[in-house]
Amino acid sequence: MTTQPAPTKPAAPPKAMRAFAMLGLGRTGFVQKPLPVAGPNDAIVKTTHALVCTSDSHTVHGAIGPRELLTLGHEAVGIVYAVGSEVRRFKPGDRVVVGAITPDWGSEEAQNGFPSQSSGALGGWKYANIKDGVFAEYFHVNEADANMALIPPDVASEQAVYCADMLSTGFMAAEHGEIPIGGTVAIFAQGPVGLMATAGARLRGAGRIFAVESEPRRADLAREFGAHLVVDFSKEDPVARIIAETSGIGVDTAIEALGTEKSFQQCVEVTKPGGTISNVGYHGSDDYVAIPRVAWGVGMADKTIRTGLCPGGSLRLERLLRVLQQRQLDPTKMTMHTFGFEDMNKAFEIMDRKLDGVLKPLIVF
Amino acid sequence: MTTQPAPTKPAAPPKAMRAFAMLGLGRTGFVQKPLPVAGPNDAIVKTTHALVCTSDSHTVHGAIGPRELLTLGHEAVGIVYAVGSEVRRFKPGDRVVVGAITPDWGSEEAQNGFPSQSSGALGGWKYANIKDGVFAEYFHVNEADANMALIPPDVASEQAVYCADMLSTGFMAAEHGEIPIGGTVAIFAQGPVGLMATAGARLRGAGRIFAVESEPRRADLAREFGAHLVVDFSKEDPVARIIAETSGIGVDTAIEALGTEKSFQQCVEVTKPGGTISNVGYHGSDDYVAIPRVAWGVGMADKTIRTGLCPGGSLRLERLLRVLQQRQLDPTKMTMHTFGFEDMNKAFEIMDRKLDGVLKPLIVF
Amino acid sequence: MTTQPAPTKPAAPPKAMRAFAMLGLGRTGFVQKPLPVAGPNDAIVKTTHALVCTSDSHTVHGAIGPRELLTLGHEAVGIVYAVGSEVRRFKPGDRVVVGAITPDWGSEEAQNGFPSQSSGALGGWKYANIKDGVFAEYFHVNEADANMALIPPDVASEQAVYCADMLSTGFMAAEHGEIPIGGTVAIFAQGPVGLMATAGARLRGAGRIFAVESEPRRADLAREFGAHLVVDFSKEDPVARIIAETSGIGVDTAIEALGTEKSFQQCVEVTKPGGTISNVGYHGSDDYVAIPRVAWGVGMADKTIRTGLCPGGSLRLERLLRVLQQRQLDPTKMTMHTFGFEDMNKAFEIMDRKLDGVLKPLIVF
Amino acid sequence: MTTQPAPTKPAAPPKAMRAFAMLGLGRTGFVQKPLPVAGPNDAIVKTTHALVCTSDSHTVHGAIGPRELLTLGHEAVGIVYAVGSEVRRFKPGDRVVVGAITPDWGSEEAQNGFPSQSSGALGGWKYANIKDGVFAEYFHVNEADANMALIPPDVASEQAVYCADMLSTGFMAAEHGEIPIGGTVAIFAQGPVGLMATAGARLRGAGRIFAVESEPRRADLAREFGAHLVVDFSKEDPVARIIAETSGIGVDTAIEALGTEKSFQQCVEVTKPGGTISNVGYHGSDDYVAIPRVAWGVGMADKTIRTGLCPGGSLRLERLLRVLQQRQLDPTKMTMHTFGFEDMNKAFEIMDRKLDGVLKPLIVF
Repeated sequence: MTTQPAPTKPAAPPKAMRAFAMLGLGRTGFVQKPLPVAGPNDAIVKTTHALVCTSDSHTVHGAIGPRELLTLGHEAVGIVYAVGSEVRRFKPGDRVVVGAITPDWGSEEAQNGFPSQSSGALGGWKYANIKDGVFAEYFHVNEADANMALIPPDVASEQAVYCADMLSTGFMAAEHGEIPIGGTVAIFAQGPVGLMATAGARLRGAGRIFAVESEPRRADLAREFGAHLVVDFSKEDPVARIIAETSGIGVDTAIEALGTEKSFQQCVEVTKPGGTISNVGYHGSDDYVAIPRVAWGVGMADKTIRTGLCPGGSLRLERLLRVLQQRQLDPTKMTMHTFGFEDMNKAFEIMDRKLDGVLKPLIVF
Repeated sequence: MTTQPAPTKPAAPPKAMRAFAMLGLGRTGFVQKPLPVAGPNDAIVKTTHALVCTSDSHTVHGAIGPRELLTLGHEAVGIVYAVGSEVRRFKPGDRVVVGAITPDWGSEEAQNGFPSQSSGALGGWKYANIKDGVFAEYFHVNEADANMALIPPDVASEQAVYCADMLSTGFMAAEHGEIPIGGTVAIFAQGPVGLMATAGARLRGAGRIFAVESEPRRADLAREFGAHLVVDFSKEDPVARIIAETSGIGVDTAIEALGTEKSFQQCVEVTKPGGTISNVGYHGSDDYVAIPRVAWGVGMADKTIRTGLCPGGSLRLERLLRVLQQRQLDPTKMTMHTFGFEDMNKAFEIMDRKLDGVLKPLIVF
Repeated sequence: MTTQPAPTKPAAPPKAMRAFAMLGLGRTGFVQKPLPVAGPNDAIVKTTHALVCTSDSHTVHGAIGPRELLTLGHEAVGIVYAVGSEVRRFKPGDRVVVGAITPDWGSEEAQNGFPSQSSGALGGWKYANIKDGVFAEYFHVNEADANMALIPPDVASEQAVYCADMLSTGFMAAEHGEIPIGGTVAIFAQGPVGLMATAGARLRGAGRIFAVESEPRRADLAREFGAHLVVDFSKEDPVARIIAETSGIGVDTAIEALGTEKSFQQCVEVTKPGGTISNVGYHGSDDYVAIPRVAWGVGMADKTIRTGLCPGGSLRLERLLRVLQQRQLDPTKMTMHTFGFEDMNKAFEIMDRKLDGVLKPLIVF
Repeated sequence: MTTQPAPTKPAAPPKAMRAFAMLGLGRTGFVQKPLPVAGPNDAIVKTTHALVCTSDSHTVHGAIGPRELLTLGHEAVGIVYAVGSEVRRFKPGDRVVVGAITPDWGSEEAQNGFPSQSSGALGGWKYANIKDGVFAEYFHVNEADANMALIPPDVASEQAVYCADMLSTGFMAAEHGEIPIGGTVAIFAQGPVGLMATAGARLRGAGRIFAVESEPRRADLAREFGAHLVVDFSKEDPVARIIAETSGIGVDTAIEALGTEKSFQQCVEVTKPGGTISNVGYHGSDDYVAIPRVAWGVGMADKTIRTGLCPGGSLRLERLLRVLQQRQLDPTKMTMHTFGFEDMNKAFEIMDRKLDGVLKPLIVF
């Protein structure tokens, strides 16, 4: 929004940069790439911090099909390096966070209220999918005015980088759940998105939050982020327990944050008639995801199944940054590992193999 | 709402009545039953017209488990015969239509906005489920003030009886679909509920309505009730056709009005990202109803799956009666067969075996 | 929900009781009244704790017209003393909180989603309006199953009594405001309802909460309940300040919790296009409440004006009790004065004249 | 969506064009202007048909402040003449309709769901407000891909031009009203927007539509577009009549389509508790628009006041065109006068002075 005169650009701009890419199925490594170029509505950002996501790992293993020399990564903050002729709200030197999802805001899907689906299903997901991602010294931002936000001085970049995907996706799960103040919520799995769904449920004023998780460190974080009861599915049947805890009625909202058919079915089972199942897990295998017929009320029990993809946009990012400014939660509790960009291989491996209880490795450029 | 002086009650009230009941699995017939008695909030209605529903047939074949001597039927109009001490809005002699679903309006599910689920999943469905139905000379109405409506003089009973279930359920399918003015809708199957879903889509201002149906008489009725294009699934793939007709984008809303897994899956497939699948079909078999994973956007394409059970209540009934008063549609086009109550066995058989292109047999008492 | 056998009633039930009533315009005092009697759906509750509300004072001064010998009060908890024949969920001896608003759940307004308006505008408001209130040794509860809730053992009656009106009304103000996570909210006036609106905004995950208040003790409580900035309207223009704090854009939601035309207008002025003005203040004088035309965008700026009356019902009460069980806020911070029922005159006077910084006098029976 | 190779542009493009402009307060006339130039996201359209709007007249009389040499008009169709480098969906030669409101789709207001308010209150209204309008041989379209739509071959330009503003605004009034199927609606004033609100109410399935109008020709059109009863406010009190027609209850939805304080107040008065007042009239004078306090339920009767500005966007336009394709209504019934562009002065005068029962003068270029 500030429009100070743009500082002069560096005299001799770099011509090439390092990027961490998927080389082919199951293979990753560093490559040299030319700097991306900004069209009239775009920006180029110099990366300073990024987070590794489980979906980067899925991609490398073929979840979205074959890709070659595709730069990985979609969660990043950085410094604006260049902007196109039509960009009004940003200038080189600005410290910004960029949405993992960067919609085409004029698309009919966005006009219809679903920007993440712009120009086709999941079409707002561009980084490391249909264009190069953010694990590079520089990256490209389409419709820059609408897809990135200034980071306020009182928010550290290490915090802000969580807005790109984790807060936005996790909170969406809670928002889609239409949780009433004092309502009951069950959240299946407490990985980074599940933890942020738990935090989101607390932010919406849920009265009782059940988190389903067996790994002790994640269970502890779930409690810190707002879970009132953590159910260890390895020790008891989470459906039976949650139904019992709600006097046989079931919860207002169940959130699926894992992406397995079983946890999806458990969500349908613990949700009361008139309640909502909010799916945020990525269902990556098999041809079908089966709804349990009787628990679904034979298709007539007013149990609504919502889904969604991480909301993008500057407005969303600014709202999330505000939550961080007010210290309403501290997502860096999930940063238990930090690497330099040069150690990207190691960071990726730890995430890929889920070593050392990893949640979100932070990459510092 | 009219408050004429109540007519005097008959001097010697009948002690017993005829009812058409499920005698056991697969068996139906007439039985003698005592007249039902009204509690403080209830009414007793003398039946004048009723409609047979496919779900009556399902019930007899065991869909909701074993029942003995349960009176069948849930769609009826009649004359108020007696009312309880707390009933304020009705008096003996009133001509009324009663909802197929008669919720407990003080239940927490009703407070939560889902009266049809009152006191448990599908709990508003009482007739021929947890209490005797309407195929009898008299029937019982719980919470009478809230669960029935006066029929205006300019609406025939033969019309009004369609409000009990068919209009309410079919229109709900369209309402749940969140159809925008000018939006696109696909409706799978054009039985009575599907036809009323088609009429409902037209009433919501849909811009293009695709009805999927192969039976010629139903296809004709679909066109009369508002379908712009009828797709004969026996001659072409309805998914491919509807996707093509929408320029590859898919519809805003798909309505499942059959209750098969296949048509449910086709609904998911023809719905665009950000669209709604409105299920109104009763899914009566198998343990699961499987969602096609990729068409569902791997759980992230903002395709919402809604379900529901026929809305009840006097307000709903009055609104439906108003639609009939304005001649916005004529549901009696679906009445192709009429029987006296004494021919109930024949009426039931024709429905059970779907003979003679039957849609809704009308029973006159 | 528990249905143990009802304990035997006291051998010789009292025939009369003390009640604190409006004797006529501007006059209050104790009177003897017969015990209320429960109809089939009702209950009689023996009062243990009650709160005085500013609206009791308004009533005495004529706000709702002349009343004679009307028992005052609408916020109370107590012990069930008797239940009608149709009551299923409660029995004598149960410790309960009763909603200030006790809707007719079968009314068409309730069917339409607005139970507080049942049987006409504000028709759910019965206590000290169209029937005797709760400042008596016993009081009557219509549709008892739906209009009261068991108090869990871990919630004190002194806490629970705040659910009857203050939490329900204040939180409603926030809910009507459609506050997004991280959104901005301005709340005009921090009396008890305004303070609970502030707490409600925090419970919905607001990112920045502006409370407008000049009285220091209320300002302090506003901060405790979640305000990020308290604007003292006696020292600066709250509209200018809030607009400046939101970079000239205005807030997502403004809440009017005072009931003056000026604060209502300020709400319209600080709300951004597309935002919501949630009115919860009782506008008690003059023929009109004027909207500022230009700030309202000449009737085209998508600024929505919502209003409402305290939501009632057992489900609402149970959700509010859950918030107290989780210690998400402590409303007893507003209880700065406690009186025995015999000192009701004094309690009423302190509230009527707003002495000693009073917020909510608690009456112990 | 078609992407044929762009035809070659005319060899010698025109350098100047005629435009019909506001010359100063109260003065209009033809001027010569240079052709507008398309930026990267824009298009230039050669006008073929336009409609005059009452708001053009308001503008000339100073409603939006002083303007000099501003081209008037905001409702037009035409042929694409040139497109910018980033435009993907259109090419020269396409026959298109352009929204009267042309939002900035990446703005935060659009991201928030209110594109018409983009970049500030009413900021999507650019034509004849903050940039030259469409009463010229050529006009400029910002964000062309998102703000215009191809006209299907089976829709005449004379029909399509009504989508730019009249259908979009009038239908919005009905949509904002949240009309249930079978609900009751009162629409105050049957000018072009009011008539299209009436048509919109019918398209949403209203059960009873009351149109308030005294001018006989407009009353007739109201009936043709769907009104069930036209109340002549010059002969009876419309509030009393509508309340009586709804058994004393009031309507679900009242639509203000005139822009006077009196009709706005009548809307509040005829709306039932829990109902919606949908304001679409432009309130052009005085500092305040006063809500009647008691009819508003002293700020607590759940009567919601919605407002809005004509929705723009290609998706909206395509949906409206679909309604025309299906012949669901014929807006050209409102075209009772047609002029060539050279007779613009006459067309403007007839509209300005409301001569000859004019509704919408059509301008043919």
